[in-house]
Amino acid sequence: MGDSLLDNADLNAALSQLRNEIDDVDTALVNLLKRRASITQRVGELKRQHAMPVYVPEREKQLILARREQAEDEGVNPDLVEDLLRRIFRESYQSQHVNFAKVESDIQHVVVIGGKGALGRVFVKLLDSTGYTVSIVEKNDWDDIDSVVSTADMIIVAVPINKTVDIIENLPSLPKNCILADVTSIKDKPLKAMLDKHSGPVVGLHPMFGPDAPGMIRQVVVVCHGRHQETYVPFLEQMKLWGATLFESSAQNHDRAMSIIQVMRHFSSFVYGLHLHAEDPDLKELIAFSSPIYRLELAMVGRLFAQAPELYADIIFQDASNIVLLQNFADRFNNAIRLLESNDKASFVEEFKQVSAWFGDYAMQCLLDSKQMLLKADDSHLLRGGS
Amino acid sequence: MGDSLLDNADLNAALSQLRNEIDDVDTALVNLLKRRASITQRVGELKRQHAMPVYVPEREKQLILARREQAEDEGVNPDLVEDLLRRIFRESYQSQHVNFAKVESDIQHVVVIGGKGALGRVFVKLLDSTGYTVSIVEKNDWDDIDSVVSTADMIIVAVPINKTVDIIENLPSLPKNCILADVTSIKDKPLKAMLDKHSGPVVGLHPMFGPDAPGMIRQVVVVCHGRHQETYVPFLEQMKLWGATLFESSAQNHDRAMSIIQVMRHFSSFVYGLHLHAEDPDLKELIAFSSPIYRLELAMVGRLFAQAPELYADIIFQDASNIVLLQNFADRFNNAIRLLESNDKASFVEEFKQVSAWFGDYAMQCLLDSKQMLLKADDSHLLRGGS
Repeated sequence: MGDSLLDNADLNAALSQLRNEIDDVDTALVNLLKRRASITQRVGELKRQHAMPVYVPEREKQLILARREQAEDEGVNPDLVEDLLRRIFRESYQSQHVNFAKVESDIQHVVVIGGKGALGRVFVKLLDSTGYTVSIVEKNDWDDIDSVVSTADMIIVAVPINKTVDIIENLPSLPKNCILADVTSIKDKPLKAMLDKHSGPVVGLHPMFGPDAPGMIRQVVVVCHGRHQETYVPFLEQMKLWGATLFESSAQNHDRAMSIIQVMRHFSSFVYGLHLHAEDPDLKELIAFSSPIYRLELAMVGRLFAQAPELYADIIFQDASNIVLLQNFADRFNNAIRLLESNDKASFVEEFKQVSAWFGDYAMQCLLDSKQMLLKADDSHLLRGGS
Repeated sequence: MGDSLLDNADLNAALSQLRNEIDDVDTALVNLLKRRASITQRVGELKRQHAMPVYVPEREKQLILARREQAEDEGVNPDLVEDLLRRIFRESYQSQHVNFAKVESDIQHVVVIGGKGALGRVFVKLLDSTGYTVSIVEKNDWDDIDSVVSTADMIIVAVPINKTVDIIENLPSLPKNCILADVTSIKDKPLKAMLDKHSGPVVGLHPMFGPDAPGMIRQVVVVCHGRHQETYVPFLEQMKLWGATLFESSAQNHDRAMSIIQVMRHFSSFVYGLHLHAEDPDLKELIAFSSPIYRLELAMVGRLFAQAPELYADIIFQDASNIVLLQNFADRFNNAIRLLESNDKASFVEEFKQVSAWFGDYAMQCLLDSKQMLLKADDSHLLRGGS
């Protein structure tokens, strides 16, 4: 190489000089983040005072586009800039959602049954910080349920899936115009139970929260209409102001989609876990041998078993139609095994192609998205099995 | 609220003033990134000249720790700072890995069979940019194979899994000290074939590359030793200099782990795809109904079907022991279905707990890692099904 080599002392001096320069840049970066946070705080405050939504996708797009163009001009990778900005956006949403404007309506006193549960807590926090009067009812408070609901403008049932219908059926009779809502991950049975129980306004909600979601910002909430929509529209508007994206559906469609997604995936992850346990490979070695994509696949199974078995038992066992669905799944599994036993590669490829056609463009999108995700995971040394 | 409200004109003025301040901050951010890149370029150049590794985990840790502390002091979220730094690190690795120092050895002329394939290309690029003489052999070049290998110091077989053993068996006899290596995702059969074929140095390699991996930096490469280790140690050192982490294993252990991870996951994703296709739900609705975690699960299935069926057929059908493994999987699946049919929740919970115990702490780590991943995916609007 035509490069002039430095002796060790000079090399170390040169390197530490450059490292100091890097430290200066990174220090300036943290200072910038601090400055940016103080500005977005003021934006958030103004928006709250004037009942403006915190999350404005259009503004996000503009910000990113402008910085991407600047990056292009200055020879910086625009994707790097976009990734950093999006991470910074998340931060500012999380800091801004402490205060929200209250939508004008007759809804003032909201009772959250199960308000100390994971999901109930989110609603309590948002309602409370938005200026609603919130009462939490947990098991121990049930004796007072009559007096609590007597002044309620809205009741939100946020209890575990296997208790939802019971709780609804055992509610005392509610004020005529009180809104009765549930937030369970199934909708058909709870909605029917609520319509039977209460002659006033009824709505079924399913907040599709991401993990550690910053409140409701950017989260999808499925709305299954029950009765007297006009009465609870303000609450739907309130959820939009909290940042939610509403998606209307019939309870039946919702539940079928849920059993296909949730139940199928939980069950096959469960069986895969059983299988690993029975084969008993060295987990550490298994992880060491896994490329990021397989560590992710393994993590999707592993994560199931860090959670409460009862929760998954309830989801899987709660509906007989799930059993039929899973029996079909088992049949297809056994048929696929026969392809292997008869060494029928051709049919495997043929069936593979049919499924590819069914997925259409979405398959490629999944491939690209998952690649991006894995790069991000790799940045943070996630899914490295502690290695 | 006790806040004084502004009229529209003043509000818009105030907001656009704050937005200009945000734009200034973001502009400064891009400038910082440009400055940082120019510094790390110089670091990379110095390191190349003096044969120093580009990826130094310790230095990474120090940088992050120092900035986290600064963030704490200034009321900025340290996790935000760490996430941004790690993304910036990836960028500088990708820009730095254009030039690497060459490890001293007798290896000069390297023949990459299948050098135009996805994996072969990575080796060709790295070898070439490091100063090795690289010859690529593809199908059409096979007539010249004798003359090409006659001067080879090393041969890397980088062809599809189902052709590897054939190619090895059909190689002409190699120079006595020529290193014969393969990079297939199975190791036992190729290693045996190479040892039979060649009496000189032999090594089996499996680079566990992540998608779009920046060269070999931070990637795991499994090494299955064959013969005359001392001869190819310099090449192992070269891969370390390229940033790889080496993991030694026997070919049998490697292959068993691979069939448990790759084959099982591919096959169950394949069956799940068959099942979705047969149930034929509205995919758009399915995605809309999915919380981020289910979109990820769906994406892990969908991505399979964006790829070549033959590839997966080869991986799954290549080894009869896979069939046994999958038959066991099917048996466990059918047993689990029986739990459902007999509505035996108690046994479901019991078996669930046994698997949780088997996973141990790793289950919780999977849960936490996947949550972090989903937050990052959410930042980038990944896995949103185009919504």
